[in-house]
Amino acid sequence: MSRITALDTSDIRFPTSLSLDGSDAMNPDPDYSAAYVIVRTDAEDGIEGHSFVFTIGRGNDVQVAAIAALADHLVGRELEPLLDDMGGIFREIIGDSQLRWLGPEKGVMHMAIGAAINALWDIKAKRAGLPLWQLLARMSPEEIVDLVDFRYLTNALTRDEALEILRAAVPGRAEREQELLATGYPGYTTSPGWLGYSDEKLERLAREAMADGFTQIKLKVGADLDDDIRRFRKAREVCGPDFPIAIDANQRWEVSEAIEWVNALAEFNPAWIEEPTSPDDILGHAEIARGVAPIRVATGEHAQNRMIFKQLLQANAIEVMQIDSVRVAGVNENIANLLLAAKFGVPVCPHAGGVGLCEAVQHLSMFDFVAITGTREGRLIEFVDHLHEHFVVPTDIQGGSYMAPTEPGTSMEMKAASIAKFTWKGQHVID
Amino acid sequence: MSRITALDTSDIRFPTSLSLDGSDAMNPDPDYSAAYVIVRTDAEDGIEGHSFVFTIGRGNDVQVAAIAALADHLVGRELEPLLDDMGGIFREIIGDSQLRWLGPEKGVMHMAIGAAINALWDIKAKRAGLPLWQLLARMSPEEIVDLVDFRYLTNALTRDEALEILRAAVPGRAEREQELLATGYPGYTTSPGWLGYSDEKLERLAREAMADGFTQIKLKVGADLDDDIRRFRKAREVCGPDFPIAIDANQRWEVSEAIEWVNALAEFNPAWIEEPTSPDDILGHAEIARGVAPIRVATGEHAQNRMIFKQLLQANAIEVMQIDSVRVAGVNENIANLLLAAKFGVPVCPHAGGVGLCEAVQHLSMFDFVAITGTREGRLIEFVDHLHEHFVVPTDIQGGSYMAPTEPGTSMEMKAASIAKFTWKGQHVID
Repeated sequence: MSRITALDTSDIRFPTSLSLDGSDAMNPDPDYSAAYVIVRTDAEDGIEGHSFVFTIGRGNDVQVAAIAALADHLVGRELEPLLDDMGGIFREIIGDSQLRWLGPEKGVMHMAIGAAINALWDIKAKRAGLPLWQLLARMSPEEIVDLVDFRYLTNALTRDEALEILRAAVPGRAEREQELLATGYPGYTTSPGWLGYSDEKLERLAREAMADGFTQIKLKVGADLDDDIRRFRKAREVCGPDFPIAIDANQRWEVSEAIEWVNALAEFNPAWIEEPTSPDDILGHAEIARGVAPIRVATGEHAQNRMIFKQLLQANAIEVMQIDSVRVAGVNENIANLLLAAKFGVPVCPHAGGVGLCEAVQHLSMFDFVAITGTREGRLIEFVDHLHEHFVVPTDIQGGSYMAPTEPGTSMEMKAASIAKFTWKGQHVID
Repeated sequence: MSRITALDTSDIRFPTSLSLDGSDAMNPDPDYSAAYVIVRTDAEDGIEGHSFVFTIGRGNDVQVAAIAALADHLVGRELEPLLDDMGGIFREIIGDSQLRWLGPEKGVMHMAIGAAINALWDIKAKRAGLPLWQLLARMSPEEIVDLVDFRYLTNALTRDEALEILRAAVPGRAEREQELLATGYPGYTTSPGWLGYSDEKLERLAREAMADGFTQIKLKVGADLDDDIRRFRKAREVCGPDFPIAIDANQRWEVSEAIEWVNALAEFNPAWIEEPTSPDDILGHAEIARGVAPIRVATGEHAQNRMIFKQLLQANAIEVMQIDSVRVAGVNENIANLLLAAKFGVPVCPHAGGVGLCEAVQHLSMFDFVAITGTREGRLIEFVDHLHEHFVVPTDIQGGSYMAPTEPGTSMEMKAASIAKFTWKGQHVID
């Protein structure tokens, strides 16, 4: 037996606002940040659980405080019973009735719970000597559904229906693991499309993306329609008429405005329109979906929990579902989200970028391929080529695909030197 | 000119779990708490802005940290330009793109913004020498709509439509002010209905509620159906067949379970069923509303922002709308909520209780009566007789009605002695 001895947090901020990396219609000057946590134990293996919540600067300290507040649930406890029943500890923390009042199940406190749970998954995967995707994909259907909280989902997805989905994917798991290890999981890149970039930079990066083997790019839109038309036209000229180019408005529009704006860009054949309006507006997304069809609506990076995904699917509001690895309550809640998508037959194309989101979310798509849907068809993981150098096991992109990690853990561990260097001191560190 | 000099926060917790006051199906042992803030200025009038977020115990420290993080937006700034344009400072803070990532517009960070905004309203009302309800009710329709952020609302409520509603209520404002000062605003009480109370206590408190002049009571339900049937029957015996008795499940049920459970209690004629399921489940509430009609569905105390209320109304999911004074981004966002309800013709019966929620929310209903809907018909403010003694201007209930406050401010100011005594020291203070 060993015990959890500490939940050590750090407020880490990168000065990305200085280069306009990550600039979009709603977020003009983000400082990509991580509310970081290390779960330490007294086990002889010396394994630590690393995890974080991604934020974009101010307020990262509040997010850190929320994670630190979870020490009461974990520090001093025996580790093995927690790791043996990851569904149990998940339900215990999200069910804490006093903490629940602060959401419920949304915002700062919910993301903090996700960080704590994901840190435990990091320990569990490292102990098993497996990358997270493989650890999950080798669990039995019964073990997987035990990880999920079906509360508030049963009018869309029951435990028995989830079991049926998982059991149907048991045959072929081993082959798909091998296929994944050999060929990876397809990615697409947003790197060309930030609003702060010049047309020349956009064109150059779009060319590079195609040369690198990516099979889709994405442009940020929504600040100025004339600019969007010009930038989309240039991207089409570079990429050709058939190359998939998605667009992303980052919640910029009213419902009617979204429909008009997207239809004004329809001639350029967007692969999808992402985050057209408030992430809370399920009925609004449904109205937009009807108004811009056959252009597909995508959303989810700010979907606060499984209840929002449930409704987006029930309302036919999205044709592409974009989970985020750190917005919800960790791996457990994202398994519910993946199962919901499978139930409704909607492809999951995860949100990534930021700090370490690519590293984290790839495991979920790979698990989905091996053990839930059994397919990569029509599915892509977002890729942004920022800040990977700070991670112990950075993403490995080859020919536009995410190569499956083989190192044990969740890939969320940041290098100690990066943590030290970018720990927030009240102003940016400039070399 | 004067400046804001400090945002002083306190973590205040009352040991309510020791008496099971406030116990319901989801919250068995709340410790009613306040993440409290005092905005101080260097003005010679010595006026302070007092405000808080209500929580139920653990995590109150996180909520305090979130409020403290807003000091960057306020401390050092000139006060008068902020007070003269309360819509401007509201939009500035909720529009902070970096902080916005932590919601957006939900949870801990959003409630913190509400506390900061409400503290400014407290200063503004005290400077004007008016209670908040009267200050608001004397603003012009144009000034009132300038307080609102119509972003994401325009497919349900435009600025022009809001203006029309407000202009229609201008005639008669003065008469309604006088009427309110003379007769107050009707309340209903939840005091008899906590799950932790014995049947005898329930019966005694129900009798007292009727004797005190309340025109409705509410029972907590959802933990055990047989208990609910027994308790509801006893309440009916005490109150008679026609006295309105609402029931409140505090988010306890799945959608189908809610429909079955409420229909099993239908013979007792509930005035409404409150919070039957997840507050995020708009489509679920709509399904429940159809499944339990003609029993009315009520919700809103956990509705995270105006986009949720918009959809609940669009989907015909609620027939009673329950705003909360501190769940959303303050007075400004609640004005949007009141205008939405008016547009859809749904009565607002605010959530209250907790710590100071009665004191705070009464101003919004009174403003609604004088300047928005012009009616109190079918509208009641919740009342729970707890912890009022800690407020400088406690609610004044006469004959079951909230008497209109006449003291300047928002009534959210707690006594200094109570703040000092119940500031959290890591364990409860027991006399």
